[in-house]
Amino acid sequence: MLTFVGLGLYDERSITLAGRDAIRAADRVFAEFYTSQLAGATLADLESFYGVEIEVRDRAGIERDPEPILDAASEGDAVFLTAGDTMISTTHVDLRLRAEERGTETRVIHGTTAQTAASSLTGLQNYRFGKATTLPFERSHGAEGVPDSVIETIEANRERDLHTLVFLDISIDDDREDFMTGATAAGMLADQWRADALGTVVARAGSPEPVVRADRLDALSTEDFGDPLHLLLVPGSLHHIERDALAALADAPADVLADNVAE
Amino acid sequence: MLTFVGLGLYDERSITLAGRDAIRAADRVFAEFYTSQLAGATLADLESFYGVEIEVRDRAGIERDPEPILDAASEGDAVFLTAGDTMISTTHVDLRLRAEERGTETRVIHGTTAQTAASSLTGLQNYRFGKATTLPFERSHGAEGVPDSVIETIEANRERDLHTLVFLDISIDDDREDFMTGATAAGMLADQWRADALGTVVARAGSPEPVVRADRLDALSTEDFGDPLHLLLVPGSLHHIERDALAALADAPADVLADNVAE
Repeated sequence: MLTFVGLGLYDERSITLAGRDAIRAADRVFAEFYTSQLAGATLADLESFYGVEIEVRDRAGIERDPEPILDAASEGDAVFLTAGDTMISTTHVDLRLRAEERGTETRVIHGTTAQTAASSLTGLQNYRFGKATTLPFERSHGAEGVPDSVIETIEANRERDLHTLVFLDISIDDDREDFMTGATAAGMLADQWRADALGTVVARAGSPEPVVRADRLDALSTEDFGDPLHLLLVPGSLHHIERDALAALADAPADVLADNVAE
Repeated sequence: MLTFVGLGLYDERSITLAGRDAIRAADRVFAEFYTSQLAGATLADLESFYGVEIEVRDRAGIERDPEPILDAASEGDAVFLTAGDTMISTTHVDLRLRAEERGTETRVIHGTTAQTAASSLTGLQNYRFGKATTLPFERSHGAEGVPDSVIETIEANRERDLHTLVFLDISIDDDREDFMTGATAAGMLADQWRADALGTVVARAGSPEPVVRADRLDALSTEDFGDPLHLLLVPGSLHHIERDALAALADAPADVLADNVAE
């Protein structure tokens, strides 16, 4: 059996009870932290809290050499962990399909995700979000500035009066980790799209003290939202309850909100 | 303090550890089950498992008479529970804002949601979903058939080659509960939109034994997916990994998938 378990958003207590139980019952526990990370817990924290040894694999160890994980799953109960929800990445869908091909039973124990949190923490309604996008570091996509596809996604959502969730790049090399901040992302969009558009930054979603701030993109670009992870939302027009929520929960200036309320 | 806690998708073990701890530490625990329900646990199951008394409120008891909850939150630690994630409903955003207005601190402990599960269980990629919609019972929206807005949302998503998550209506009266099935929903869309379009039904997301089935809408309309809750997905064109996932995980016929693979 290969059980994919989402660790959820923040630390060792963000997992569901069902997920925690699956970890405790497993013969072997694998994890990867290159698609996402828990900002509030180290590997040692997880191992100590769940009382298991966790074998961390890098991208090559999953995409090119999945056999050890698949063998463990065919011989016993293996659990595969990621931050958030496990199946967000196509890489892991591939791992699941390989297991199924070998006749190994698979299951998924869901974790909370940035999508959940983006809506939940801001008061922006979940059914008003369009397609999400990811803003990469320049070095990640090998070109300057904001990729056209990001702006196209935001524009296409706004044409339909929908909100856009912008995931911010994480760059993990052998020797360093870089997390794009909400300020950097807001600044990139302010420079190359619209400085006066309303944006909302969510920092440390799922933590005990998340920060949520809404303002014009150029104003957000000069703020410090603290530790990672950050998300950027670009709302469509605001329904009244959404306006009230951004005022109360995200400290949004009244004049900025007034420009963005739906007729 | 007013803490909104999402119970997650299925039963008493779908909650996060952080959520369970908040319940145990609370002076009073409130809940509502009119926006969504846990298919795998009764109120008694929850009370017994968490070791607390849970005060269930109906819609009127939250929207028109929130004072008892707000009073409890200003006098001590109150927790407010819903299935899934608490903040999905504007009703609860309103409750949160009322608490903030009174100077009561609020926080949100996220729960897993249908969005998470729809992507995770099917292999359809999360960044390829457009706006979600809800298919109501005819008696709920007071007209025959499928509302134009539902078809417009699906069509607008498909124009951008995006998947659509269709939430299915839950109708809760004093004396009965009705859950729209995936088969009913597929049949309604087959009749009034496109019988040969690819659909995917997810039944009992978050449970130990979810069912995922993909086929043409008219074929799905004759199947029995078992107990609630059900979701219907209407995919855009499929990337190759998505096609492989629907074949392996959703038993989709090869000819139906072949018609839907992206160029």
